Amino acid sequence: MSEKCHAVRPFAAPGGNVRLATTVRSHSHFYPVILAGGRGTRFWPLSRKRRAKQLLALDGKHTMIQQTVARLAPMAAPDRFWIITNDDLRSAILRQLPKLPAKQVVAEPAGRNTAPAIGLAAFLLLRRDPDAVLGLFPSDHVIAEPAQYRETLGRGIAIAAAGENIVVLGIRPTRPETGYGYIEAGAANRNGTSDLSVRRFTEKPDLATARQFLDAGNYFWNSGMFLWRADTLANALREHLPNTASVLERIAADYGTRRFAETFRKLYPKCENISIDYAVLEPRSAKGEAQSRIFCLPADFGWNDLGSWSALHEHHMAKAKTSEGTPGSASGHFALNAKNNYVHAPGKFVALVGVSNLVIVETVDALLVTTLDQSQDVGKVVKHLDEKKLKKLV
Amino acid sequence: MSEKCHAVRPFAAPGGNVRLATTVRSHSHFYPVILAGGRGTRFWPLSRKRRAKQLLALDGKHTMIQQTVARLAPMAAPDRFWIITNDDLRSAILRQLPKLPAKQVVAEPAGRNTAPAIGLAAFLLLRRDPDAVLGLFPSDHVIAEPAQYRETLGRGIAIAAAGENIVVLGIRPTRPETGYGYIEAGAANRNGTSDLSVRRFTEKPDLATARQFLDAGNYFWNSGMFLWRADTLANALREHLPNTASVLERIAADYGTRRFAETFRKLYPKCENISIDYAVLEPRSAKGEAQSRIFCLPADFGWNDLGSWSALHEHHMAKAKTSEGTPGSASGHFALNAKNNYVHAPGKFVALVGVSNLVIVETVDALLVTTLDQSQDVGKVVKHLDEKKLKKLV
Repeated sequence: MSEKCHAVRPFAAPGGNVRLATTVRSHSHFYPVILAGGRGTRFWPLSRKRRAKQLLALDGKHTMIQQTVARLAPMAAPDRFWIITNDDLRSAILRQLPKLPAKQVVAEPAGRNTAPAIGLAAFLLLRRDPDAVLGLFPSDHVIAEPAQYRETLGRGIAIAAAGENIVVLGIRPTRPETGYGYIEAGAANRNGTSDLSVRRFTEKPDLATARQFLDAGNYFWNSGMFLWRADTLANALREHLPNTASVLERIAADYGTRRFAETFRKLYPKCENISIDYAVLEPRSAKGEAQSRIFCLPADFGWNDLGSWSALHEHHMAKAKTSEGTPGSASGHFALNAKNNYVHAPGKFVALVGVSNLVIVETVDALLVTTLDQSQDVGKVVKHLDEKKLKKLV
Repeated sequence: MSEKCHAVRPFAAPGGNVRLATTVRSHSHFYPVILAGGRGTRFWPLSRKRRAKQLLALDGKHTMIQQTVARLAPMAAPDRFWIITNDDLRSAILRQLPKLPAKQVVAEPAGRNTAPAIGLAAFLLLRRDPDAVLGLFPSDHVIAEPAQYRETLGRGIAIAAAGENIVVLGIRPTRPETGYGYIEAGAANRNGTSDLSVRRFTEKPDLATARQFLDAGNYFWNSGMFLWRADTLANALREHLPNTASVLERIAADYGTRRFAETFRKLYPKCENISIDYAVLEPRSAKGEAQSRIFCLPADFGWNDLGSWSALHEHHMAKAKTSEGTPGSASGHFALNAKNNYVHAPGKFVALVGVSNLVIVETVDALLVTTLDQSQDVGKVVKHLDEKKLKKLV
């Protein structure tokens, strides 16, 4: 496999004499691993089992996963990308990302949360490059400032590459959000860079706690973006999830052979169904700041996970710098005594009379009307459709 | 022209010894004239210029005009019906009512309100039957009790047939409606029937006045349904609108000849643009109860003019005897924390989350979302579309 590397700058370990490379573009051992198995039911009826959120162009012309890859492309050649997804989505992903090697778009035979998915990537990459540094990325977030994002990643890669460090990108919170996990950061790095040691990963807080976190100043949203060497990750899994690690090593050993598909299908479901946070990061951080070697890079690159129709609406309004709600997609519209509505009804003329703060989404077979406040409950519609076995609608 | 009459019962003039015929089915000189030129913009986006409210099946399988004809069919053979409409609607009406004689579906060359339309019918019918009794009917109302409706009409025909009487069907008001004209009734008829002399026609009242009307007990909603002899109507027009009457007589004289289309097209626009209420009924009622000979028949046959999406919703809810709003038309639906919504979205699965009292109407090219309270403002959408010359949408 050819290594198409861009010019590489030397990186030093944290605590050493770090000179930050502001023009970091790539790293010879950096491999983006994109997790794209989520269903994203909160964007129903636009999102479906075979057209999950990451495959939708919610913000601009390109889909969320296309944007994710494009954003990382200056840092890694196409053959460095791995995507972990499922059978429902794999073919659509291949169509959307034709430059990526098809055999690196891996469909899990069964959903087993993030720890096995990430672990599999680590064991696969170890076989290709013993010095591999994995970047783990969700596939359905937006980043307003991609240059700053890559600059932050470059620093993170340097820290991760230097040894047994784990780097997590922490989003500076802007509101007391109760839907995210938080990272409590400790002392600042002595060398004056902005990386911080991690004290603790916390679950989703209640509102009062979220407000304390926001006020405290040393809490960050867990972005789900991590950087670590493949061997660091492999060793962490061997320590914290030995059975799963052993299963994954057996699967990785068959990669590239005729046995792989069957081995994968038979063994992968034996992995524990657990998140990487819960399996590795939380227990590891409990060892204490000095021991755990987990570092948080405060990230200020306009991150938004677009977690609901409401979040998407706010994102569009912020970009348009307006408080008037205009249809997100329509062939024309007329509003009378109506404001701050999110509308997706391509090809339709949309008339709104006397309604505000609504979410209105129309597809060829479904119509959703809800409020911005309650749009996070749209997943319950999908639950209902699942229960009623209305398969065409999910 | 053959007269296919049903069994006929004798009718006496009011004040005479009236024996009410409870099985009245038809009257040998009764001709239903249906006014079907309205645009019905308040049902946009379902109603359009070429698919006005009267052509829509808003309540059941049949359209409003089909229901209007079917309701009157036991009282008059198909060749007795006349429909006054316009060029935008005529061909659709012919398709919906194939049994009616096409030449009696008359398209006005220009809209001139009800007085010329009704007057034309009178002058046309006078030439066919000097004893014709015209029944004037809107084409877009619902009647819950058609048997009772026909019974009332039968009594009205008897009163109208007896001479220079004008009969108006008055709807017993159930709420202080400000959108209708009212009829103030005077003394009850001495012979014990329920027909009342009319004191006054009033314009649409303000809310306080409407409440007084409701409390007073002798006020009725003007249904727009009238009965009078063709010669009574012709004479009234000659008296109150002499120029228009003369124009209409010249048009009627050419009916059935090759000249008719051109005469109609050239002369009809010269008619005054005025309603029959304003042109004839109000001035005539001002002559005093004894002189005017206008009689109001209190009508209790479940009349509803379905004047807005909200009225249609209430009508459906009343029929379904429920306060839960279920989609009026959808291929399935799911409601969570949502009630009393009117939905028309055929072929779609509709999900409503946290919304109440909305009107949601979807067509192939348009989507309307408004509230039950503000649904009467939908006409303003059409006004906007007219102004923007978005002809495909109106």
